[in-house]
Amino acid sequence: MPPFVTFLSDFGLQDDFVGTCHGVVKRIAPHAEIIDITHGIRPGHVLQGALMLANTLPYMPEGIHLAVVDPGVGGSRRALALRDAVGRFHVGPDNGLLLPAADRFGGVVDAHELANPEYSLQPVSRTFHGRDLFSPAVAHLAKGVAIEELGPPIDPEELVRLELPEPEFGRSRIRATVLAVDRFGNLALNLTREQLGRARVVPGTRVELSCRGERYYAVAARTFGDTEPGELILYEDSYRQVAVAVSRGNAAAVLGAAEGSELLIQVDVP
Amino acid sequence: MPPFVTFLSDFGLQDDFVGTCHGVVKRIAPHAEIIDITHGIRPGHVLQGALMLANTLPYMPEGIHLAVVDPGVGGSRRALALRDAVGRFHVGPDNGLLLPAADRFGGVVDAHELANPEYSLQPVSRTFHGRDLFSPAVAHLAKGVAIEELGPPIDPEELVRLELPEPEFGRSRIRATVLAVDRFGNLALNLTREQLGRARVVPGTRVELSCRGERYYAVAARTFGDTEPGELILYEDSYRQVAVAVSRGNAAAVLGAAEGSELLIQVDVP
Amino acid sequence: MPPFVTFLSDFGLQDDFVGTCHGVVKRIAPHAEIIDITHGIRPGHVLQGALMLANTLPYMPEGIHLAVVDPGVGGSRRALALRDAVGRFHVGPDNGLLLPAADRFGGVVDAHELANPEYSLQPVSRTFHGRDLFSPAVAHLAKGVAIEELGPPIDPEELVRLELPEPEFGRSRIRATVLAVDRFGNLALNLTREQLGRARVVPGTRVELSCRGERYYAVAARTFGDTEPGELILYEDSYRQVAVAVSRGNAAAVLGAAEGSELLIQVDVP
Repeated sequence: MPPFVTFLSDFGLQDDFVGTCHGVVKRIAPHAEIIDITHGIRPGHVLQGALMLANTLPYMPEGIHLAVVDPGVGGSRRALALRDAVGRFHVGPDNGLLLPAADRFGGVVDAHELANPEYSLQPVSRTFHGRDLFSPAVAHLAKGVAIEELGPPIDPEELVRLELPEPEFGRSRIRATVLAVDRFGNLALNLTREQLGRARVVPGTRVELSCRGERYYAVAARTFGDTEPGELILYEDSYRQVAVAVSRGNAAAVLGAAEGSELLIQVDVP
Repeated sequence: MPPFVTFLSDFGLQDDFVGTCHGVVKRIAPHAEIIDITHGIRPGHVLQGALMLANTLPYMPEGIHLAVVDPGVGGSRRALALRDAVGRFHVGPDNGLLLPAADRFGGVVDAHELANPEYSLQPVSRTFHGRDLFSPAVAHLAKGVAIEELGPPIDPEELVRLELPEPEFGRSRIRATVLAVDRFGNLALNLTREQLGRARVVPGTRVELSCRGERYYAVAARTFGDTEPGELILYEDSYRQVAVAVSRGNAAAVLGAAEGSELLIQVDVP
Repeated sequence: MPPFVTFLSDFGLQDDFVGTCHGVVKRIAPHAEIIDITHGIRPGHVLQGALMLANTLPYMPEGIHLAVVDPGVGGSRRALALRDAVGRFHVGPDNGLLLPAADRFGGVVDAHELANPEYSLQPVSRTFHGRDLFSPAVAHLAKGVAIEELGPPIDPEELVRLELPEPEFGRSRIRATVLAVDRFGNLALNLTREQLGRARVVPGTRVELSCRGERYYAVAARTFGDTEPGELILYEDSYRQVAVAVSRGNAAAVLGAAEGSELLIQVDVP
């Protein structure tokens, strides 16, 4: 089996950033196989990248997991290689991006700073660590270089952690945040089906949604198939987040919502 | 030779949908090689996906051909694995998407519903069958699992078929439909060169095009090279469809046309 | 090691163009491995493609380098296979696209026109040479076919060359051109750090930028990390071009600049 590398970033595909990183990995580790998870993370949105990485790595073959959403490139943030409790490797910036995913595999057991010039492209540019620092580290791990070789150890407790936005539960109201908007305009919320259930919202329940001062009726549903075209629905998405959709439509457009928008869910609607 | 998987969808590349399907295939069938035909089908446009699949599969190595344009996911439409007359496999929803391509290879000789839980990711989500149902089926076929194992047979005659829009031929007028608009703004029509020829339109013929109430002059040409920059031309595109282009320009922008737009072609222009 | 093919184009990923070329290569050379550098070159912008190719090939494994930005397809421009001084192959149209990259590897030592019908898909369409002419040539080179087999030799001196826009240096003013705008809105200029230095602009120097009649203050910096969010900076990018950025912002949006825009850099600002 080839060594697998997965790759998630905010690089987009318009420029050469992703292709150049592929080239760097392949020059060092020609037999590595790269799976691009996505490069469509919104530029600089570390939280969105971290959540998508955590959602998707369980579907990826074990390997070396590269992630680059790195608005602090060239500043003082550290560059990391981590090993989690099941032996997967995670490579990327020390800004919280890697930890929610590593936590899905038992957490970080070993952390090293990428500081060994033997395993980077010299001179390391100040603005493209994906090419000069992260991709070479990934490739050397794929070739079997020990993580200890890449640089000095870091106490896993000292790694930068993101604060995840928490929903607020009132008497008959939930304040939730849009974590991500997908191509189809579906809005993933920071809310689980269990939390909705505790607020007495189950399939068939009607609720009122408020977004940007406007109010809408919506219905909790198991799937799009249960609803009328155009209807606004709350459902559990395929990553077990509660999401808002418009059946055969675009919820982000209907609600004028974007990543980070607040949604109020009013329950006990007559 | 590795087992080849081709993959076409309306998933786009902004989200993780495509990457996650790649991961699922590779976890089950690490040696499968995936060729992404495109993921840029307009969301939910089954006809556009079906035509592009039929146009492109003859250029693809024989293998397992996955296609997902699936506005009915989570509803009652069936999930399919098909075998065509030359032995290629086709996997996707039963909404007509797969059949024009299978017809290019002699038609469907064997159809099965994806119903065997051993060959899916359990529990199957209601909204992401690409990940939970189609990709695992593809991977198991790539590993050599027999199509019969995937679920009960279906009569190929009972598969859902799309209705293709047909051109209408009047005395000196053709009513055609835009099937697709590409990145360069070229408009593929539901029309062949032979049909144009029967209407006495051959290279050099001038015609009048009407689109959205506006009229334009155009000339039938063999290629862009034969024409002046800015000139509107009718030509046979590389998939042998008649198409409209603006030499070194963007016909979709000039005509305000989109997929599904009607074009009237007036021949016998003085 | 597999034979490596790299691929750069202006095809975008919305349509099937890229995927179809992959399929054609794989049908002929199943063991070739394709690295997509990017397909986001602006449609028809040969100069942008040529510069990106020259910047990125040094990071790619040695192999066969396919590039297609080809507004003259179907006209009289020739189709090429080139060998450079280190033995890399370059395949694409004779419009200048390939030469800046080949020059990075010692220049072209052998040039052939793609004219042998045995190594193309017959009949060659008039509008999709990527599929019918270039991809088959690449695949046959990957299988070990000699470049001489592909068609008659061409004198490398007769290949079409692009004119690169040159900066103009005045007494205290530099007139530069934006060569490319990346996803993050950073503007790469036709200017090197050495040229800036000769104009007495070094890290810490304040300058005035004029773009589209508007004037802005900017500071020369080593990296984003040295500056305040929102500040306009001049820095050396990772391909050693001078670039303009807004720290944690989008310089293209702030300046209203695009590829080809002129920038005036006024030095000796009090």
